[in-house]
Amino acid sequence: MSTQKGELENPIMGWAARDPSGLLSPFTFSRRTNGDDDITIKILYCGICHTDLHYIHNDHGFTHYPIVPGHEIAGVVTKVGQNVTKFKVGDHAGVGCMVDACNACENCTDDRENDCPDISRTYGTMDPSKPTNHGGYSEYIIVRDRYTVKFPDGLPLDGAAPLLCAGITVYSAMRYYGLDRPGLRVGVVGLGGLGHVAVKFAKAFGMDVTVISTSPSKKEEAVGRLGADEFLISRDDEQMKAAKGTLDGIIDTVSDIHPIAPLIDLLKRRGKLILVGATEKPFELPIIPLLIGRRLVAGSSIGGMKETQEMIDFAGRHGITADVEVVPMEYINTAMDRLAKGDVKYRFVIDIGNTLKA
Amino acid sequence: MSTQKGELENPIMGWAARDPSGLLSPFTFSRRTNGDDDITIKILYCGICHTDLHYIHNDHGFTHYPIVPGHEIAGVVTKVGQNVTKFKVGDHAGVGCMVDACNACENCTDDRENDCPDISRTYGTMDPSKPTNHGGYSEYIIVRDRYTVKFPDGLPLDGAAPLLCAGITVYSAMRYYGLDRPGLRVGVVGLGGLGHVAVKFAKAFGMDVTVISTSPSKKEEAVGRLGADEFLISRDDEQMKAAKGTLDGIIDTVSDIHPIAPLIDLLKRRGKLILVGATEKPFELPIIPLLIGRRLVAGSSIGGMKETQEMIDFAGRHGITADVEVVPMEYINTAMDRLAKGDVKYRFVIDIGNTLKA
Repeated sequence: MSTQKGELENPIMGWAARDPSGLLSPFTFSRRTNGDDDITIKILYCGICHTDLHYIHNDHGFTHYPIVPGHEIAGVVTKVGQNVTKFKVGDHAGVGCMVDACNACENCTDDRENDCPDISRTYGTMDPSKPTNHGGYSEYIIVRDRYTVKFPDGLPLDGAAPLLCAGITVYSAMRYYGLDRPGLRVGVVGLGGLGHVAVKFAKAFGMDVTVISTSPSKKEEAVGRLGADEFLISRDDEQMKAAKGTLDGIIDTVSDIHPIAPLIDLLKRRGKLILVGATEKPFELPIIPLLIGRRLVAGSSIGGMKETQEMIDFAGRHGITADVEVVPMEYINTAMDRLAKGDVKYRFVIDIGNTLKA
Repeated sequence: MSTQKGELENPIMGWAARDPSGLLSPFTFSRRTNGDDDITIKILYCGICHTDLHYIHNDHGFTHYPIVPGHEIAGVVTKVGQNVTKFKVGDHAGVGCMVDACNACENCTDDRENDCPDISRTYGTMDPSKPTNHGGYSEYIIVRDRYTVKFPDGLPLDGAAPLLCAGITVYSAMRYYGLDRPGLRVGVVGLGGLGHVAVKFAKAFGMDVTVISTSPSKKEEAVGRLGADEFLISRDDEQMKAAKGTLDGIIDTVSDIHPIAPLIDLLKRRGKLILVGATEKPFELPIIPLLIGRRLVAGSSIGGMKETQEMIDFAGRHGITADVEVVPMEYINTAMDRLAKGDVKYRFVIDIGNTLKA
């Protein structure tokens, strides 16, 4: 699914990065016309994910410029293809990290489109022979209905948009690895965009939650406001020693190199350390603590579309949204600078509907 | 459970290492009398595990000398405590890596005595305040019945003895991580004491087995004799590249530092790399391949007693034994030297019954 092929609609407006400086500025491009299986969403809000920051700076080396980022998209349906039954015009719909896949492989048929090797990302492309998709820092997006979610009534769209990336990432990791049952003791490493949502889902699952952070200053926030049960300072050897062998699992949201041996030590026997932060450099993995007690280290990345809808419905029932700072489109470059410094609680969301001028 | 407390039987003979030279020589020591829950086993065979080699040289830093090694013990029951119903005098019985645990914690009550923090090893001790147990390079051993297995009729004791450590290690790893179903494609890294038994169990489970080795010379052995389906030379980049993403799981038996990134690349999405070799130095763990497709890296160490009996019964039904070179007790120091060089196919077993002179 490309943005360039087929009949073109009228040009639409977005904000794009044009080179590795990462500076974003207004950009006019086209999307395909709305097909029989597609819906068109007028974008109202788009979250700013850390991946966007990596992407505009070409940190992973596969960015094609110009690129319109954004994969935490919430808006209102303005057009519905003739095969689409899930939506009517006026519904609230969202788009996360992918807009298509092969829809035929064993991953896709098993509702794990996120595992499909032919996944089509919401923006950018892994395959240089294909046109680059453009994301949600833009007026409209046209997406096959399978790759959209329907927001439940009452879930505010600004706080719900980041759930489509940050939310599904931690929700699916907890579900897949069985860290979703009342009474389990789970740790959350890093209190950022993913981490603060992980605390909320973990509490909604009925688990006992320990936030693990390098910053003592986050204790009040973690325990007092987000409802975590415990707070551990990862640099405090005494605290870490006292907590050895106490956790059933850990969701590690830190997307930079850091020591994992002390985290493995926190696990009970048969405990699970689940990494959800993408890090280029390899970690140091101690072996003997894995052998004794069958501890495991694993990764997880977003989730399938059926599970993403399930996550959003769960969020609706439990009143879970991301804590967001809503900013105008013109603020994007400042927001990126602040995000790079970790200066946001906990997710920037762009008020596309009111501030992106055509 | 110690070997020193309680009433002492008559002194018995074993072979012990007395210092980090690791040289073994005749040694006289005592064991407790046979209690109500105990059986006494006259040892006929004892396998030589790589752990024995580490232990006699104090490679892990917690050896207490003198030490009689040996935790792959097979013999015949000569005495039965009054509470014991599982055995009668004359039965074939075996002892693996542990001789007791707390028998009360959630691990023990869940038949995972191997996860009990109070595990009592067959030889040596993790707790310097307790006496050191002595292992199977000796005439007799007295063990609580729960920590023994009964050999099925027809399983030769010399080839069966190594199953109590090498066998349960790979069998339990495959079972716990779900790598035990017909049709799965599983890799076995390293064709040594553990690896060659892993191939046999994997084939008995009905899996398609790929042996992964640094030595092209092992191909004939792996495919021709042990029945592996495929053979991959881990240093051959072309072969490794062609096999990317083809395995459901890998049992990695190598107990020395080695690159695991190329092994992770061999896994399908949701594939599992299971490490069973104890290595002191940390490995380099790439993160992104774990995230994409939820691959996991985990450890495993022996198994509980119920499962050990299950493994031995399975081995009996499928005719699985280790390939052994049976050696006399006097050959032990030469055997250790050869083991250090990997010069054995695939397990030395000491003919205790015929060659250990009192």
